[in-house]
Amino acid sequence: MSSTVGQVIRCRAAVAWEAGKPLVMEEVEVAPPQANEVRVKILFTSLCHTDVYFWEAKGQNPLFPRIYGHEAGGIVESVGEGVTDLKPGDHVLPVFTGECKECAHCKSEESNMCDLLRINTDRGVMLNDGKSRFSINGKPIYHFVGTSTFSEYTVIHVGCLAKINPLAPLDKVCVLSCGISTGLGATLNVAKPAKGSTVAVFGLGAVGLAAAEGARIAGASRIIGVDLNSNRFEEAKKFGATEFVNPKDYNKPIQEVIAEMTNGGVDRSVECTGHIDAMISAFECVHDGWGVAVLVGVPHKDAVFKTHPMNLLNERTLKGTFFGNYKPRSDLPSVVEKYMSKVQRVVSTFNFPLSIRSRVMALVMTKIMH
Amino acid sequence: MSSTVGQVIRCRAAVAWEAGKPLVMEEVEVAPPQANEVRVKILFTSLCHTDVYFWEAKGQNPLFPRIYGHEAGGIVESVGEGVTDLKPGDHVLPVFTGECKECAHCKSEESNMCDLLRINTDRGVMLNDGKSRFSINGKPIYHFVGTSTFSEYTVIHVGCLAKINPLAPLDKVCVLSCGISTGLGATLNVAKPAKGSTVAVFGLGAVGLAAAEGARIAGASRIIGVDLNSNRFEEAKKFGATEFVNPKDYNKPIQEVIAEMTNGGVDRSVECTGHIDAMISAFECVHDGWGVAVLVGVPHKDAVFKTHPMNLLNERTLKGTFFGNYKPRSDLPSVVEKYMSKVQRVVSTFNFPLSIRSRVMALVMTKIMH
Ligand SMILES: NC(=O)c1ccc[n+]([C@@H]2O[C@H](COP(=O)([O-])OP(=O)(O)OC[C@H]3O[C@@H](n4cnc5c(N)ncnc54)[C@H](O)[C@@H]3O)[C@@H](O)[C@H]2O)c1
Ligand SMILES: NC(=O)c1ccc[n+]([C@@H]2O[C@H](COP(=O)([O-])OP(=O)(O)OC[C@H]3O[C@@H](n4cnc5c(N)ncnc54)[C@H](O)[C@@H]3O)[C@@H](O)[C@H]2O)c1
Ligand SMILES: [Zn+2]
Ligand SMILES: [Zn+2]
Ligand SMILES: [Zn+2]
Ligand SMILES: [Zn+2]
Repeated sequence: MSSTVGQVIRCRAAVAWEAGKPLVMEEVEVAPPQANEVRVKILFTSLCHTDVYFWEAKGQNPLFPRIYGHEAGGIVESVGEGVTDLKPGDHVLPVFTGECKECAHCKSEESNMCDLLRINTDRGVMLNDGKSRFSINGKPIYHFVGTSTFSEYTVIHVGCLAKINPLAPLDKVCVLSCGISTGLGATLNVAKPAKGSTVAVFGLGAVGLAAAEGARIAGASRIIGVDLNSNRFEEAKKFGATEFVNPKDYNKPIQEVIAEMTNGGVDRSVECTGHIDAMISAFECVHDGWGVAVLVGVPHKDAVFKTHPMNLLNERTLKGTFFGNYKPRSDLPSVVEKYMSKVQRVVSTFNFPLSIRSRVMALVMTKIMH
Repeated sequence: MSSTVGQVIRCRAAVAWEAGKPLVMEEVEVAPPQANEVRVKILFTSLCHTDVYFWEAKGQNPLFPRIYGHEAGGIVESVGEGVTDLKPGDHVLPVFTGECKECAHCKSEESNMCDLLRINTDRGVMLNDGKSRFSINGKPIYHFVGTSTFSEYTVIHVGCLAKINPLAPLDKVCVLSCGISTGLGATLNVAKPAKGSTVAVFGLGAVGLAAAEGARIAGASRIIGVDLNSNRFEEAKKFGATEFVNPKDYNKPIQEVIAEMTNGGVDRSVECTGHIDAMISAFECVHDGWGVAVLVGVPHKDAVFKTHPMNLLNERTLKGTFFGNYKPRSDLPSVVEKYMSKVQRVVSTFNFPLSIRSRVMALVMTKIMH
C-alpha cells in the first residue's frame, strides 16, 4: 500500500482562476476519497472542446476557480469506503458521464444516461458531501464533470471510472475517454450503417474522424466527409473518408448536393460539429424510406432544430447520442480490447496527431507529468 | 369471363366538380385496364380525411373534376396486359401507395415508399399513358391517389392492390386500406413498444384508435390518450387507452404533464393528429435515453417542426411513418389474416363505428352500391 493512502496529497494541477484566463500550474491539495470515490493518479490527459467551452464560460454558468480536464488515463492510488470494483494499481479511464448500474437508464439496454452520474457541468463538487476534494491553502477549487484530470491526482466517483486492460498504453487509449468513443459509438452503436452503405460525416474534428472510422469498420462503401475547412480532408482520408464536400463551395444547401451525389441521399449521417445548420443538413441529407441521422455535436443553448415534418413522415429517423451510447464501465473496457487485439481497424483511430486534440489552444500539455 | 371485359363500363360514381362543392352522383364511363392495370368493382368504400383535404383543396393543388376515395374493398373485374398476380374474381384492397417490387424502396426491408407508386396527390391520370380511365360524355374525370374508389368501378395499377383472403368480409376489412393500418403499423412496426411499456397516443380519431390498439396488442401497460376533444376518451378506452389527458385542461405544455405522470416521459409516443404542436409535444414527451416518437399525421404544408437539439442529444428518437410502414402487397394480406384468425386482439380494431370514418361529413355513403 502506498504511503499516501488516507493522506492529503499535494501535487501539481492546471487551475483556471477566471473565465478565459490562462490556466496556472499550482500546487493543490487533494483530499482522500470518500465513500464510492477513488483517487486516481493521472498519467495522461488531452484537451477536449468541452473543457474550452466551460473555461470560456460564454453563455455557460461560470464556476471558478476550477480544474478542467476529462479525457485522460490513470492509475488508482486509493479507494474510498464501499469501493469494491477497483483497487490501487488498477488502470482506469475517467469518464465525464457515469454508470451507477442501479438506475433505470443503467438498467436499460438502450440508454447510457445514468440518472445519478449523468454529466453535470454546473456541479463543481463531489456527490457524497457536496464538497470539493481540491484546495489551495484551504480555499476549495471546483471539480469539472466529475473528472478534473488537469491534475496529477484527482478524486472521481467509482461510477465514472472504466477499469481497463493494464497492458493498454495509457498515452494512447486516454483519448477513448471522450471524443473518440463518442464518434466511434455514434456510428457503430447508433447509426449502424450496413455493409456497403453510404455515410456522410459532418465535421472532421476528432469526433468526426472517429465517426468516419466507425463507418469504415462497418464496411460502408462511400464515406462523405463534410467540413467548412477543406484542410480537414487529407486527415479524414486516413480515417476512411472517400469523398469530401465543403458547403462553402456550393450555392445551394449541402443536403441537396449530397442527395444529388447519392441518388436521393445517404443511408446514414453523423453530425459532429455542434452547429445547428450542420445538424439540419445532416438530417435532411439522408435518404427517405430508411435514412438515419445521428446528432453528436453539442449545440449552442439557444439553437433550435427546424425541419418540415414531411421530412420525417417520409420515413427518415433522427436520433441523438451521448458518448456514442457507450456505458462507460460496461463498454469501454472492450473498446480498449478492440484496440489491443487490433482485429478491427479501430487501431487507426489512435493515430490521431496530437495537433487534433490540442489544436484549439495549447492550454495544457497533453502529457502533464512525464 | 364477364361480358364487360375489354368494354367500357358505365356505372355510378360520386364526382367532385369543384373544390368544396358537394359530390354529385353521376354516370361515368370507365375504360378497360391497360398494361399493369386492373379494373375493380368497388363494393365498399369509406371516407378518410385525405379525401376531404384534397376535395377542399385549401393550399393543395386543385384538380377537378375528380373522383375521390381510397379506403375501400372490391373484386377484380378484369386485368390488363402483363398482370399475372391478379385475376377476375380476386378480392382486393386498393391502397393509395403502391409496391412495384422492383425499386430500391420495395427491395429495402425498411421502406414502403415505392419510387414508382408512392402516393402522388397531384397526379390525376394513370402512369401507363398519362390519361384518365374515367370520363363523362368524353370529358375526362381525374383519378385520386391512383384509387378513386367513390365509383362502382375503378381502374388501379396492379401495384396498388393487395390481394386478400376472399373469406374476409369486405365491408369490415376495407378500413384496413388506409387509416387503421396506418395507426396499427405506426405502433407495431415503427414505435415497437416493449411489453409493459408506456405509450402516449396523440389524436384519437380512427388512426389514433388503431395506434392505441397496436399498443394494447404489444402489451403496453399504460396507454395515455391525448386529445383536445374529451369526448374521444370513451371510444379510446375500447381500443386500449388506460388514461386520458386533454391539453386544454392544463396551463403548461402537455409534454410536461405527461413527463410528470410517467416519471420522466413515456417510452413511446405516436402522433395521429396532423397538427404541428401535437407533433412537437409527442416528441418532447418521450423519456430521454430510450424514448421513441413516431409521427403519423399529415402536416400543413407550411408547418415547421421545431425543438431544442438537446432533446435529441439526450437520446430521444424521432421518426415518421407512411401507411404504418406496411408494404401494401406484401404485408396487408397478413393483416387481414390477423383479423380472420382473431388470434390477436386486432379484431377489436374493426369495431369502429361507422361514425368515426364518416364523421367529418356525410359526403358519401359508406356503402355506395348495396
Ligand atoms: N455528444 C457527446 O457525447 C460529445 C462528446 C464529445 C464531443 N462532442 C461534441 O462533438 C462536436 C465535435 O467535437 P470535435 O472535438 O471533433 O470538434 P472540432 O472543432 O475539432 O471539429 C468540428 C469540425 O466541424 C467543422 N464544422 C463546423 N461547422 C460546420 C458546418 N456548419 N458544416 C460542416 N462542418 C462544420 C469544423 O470546421 C471542424 O473541423 C463538438 O460539438 C463537441 O462538443 C459531443
Ligand atoms: N401517414 C399516413 O400514412 C396517414 C394515413 C392516414 C391518415 N393520416 C393522417 O393521420 C391523422 C389522423 O387521421 P384521423 O383520420 O384519425 O383524423 P381525425 O380527425 O379523425 O382525428 C384526429 C384527432 O386529433 C385530435 N387533435 C387535433 N389536434 C390535436 C392536438 N393539438 N392535440 C391533441 N389532439 C388533437 C382531434 O380532436 C381528433 O380527435 C391525419 O393527419 C391524417 O391525415 C396519415
Ligand atoms: Zn470531451
Ligand atoms: Zn445509473
Ligand atoms: Zn386515407
Ligand atoms: Zn417500388
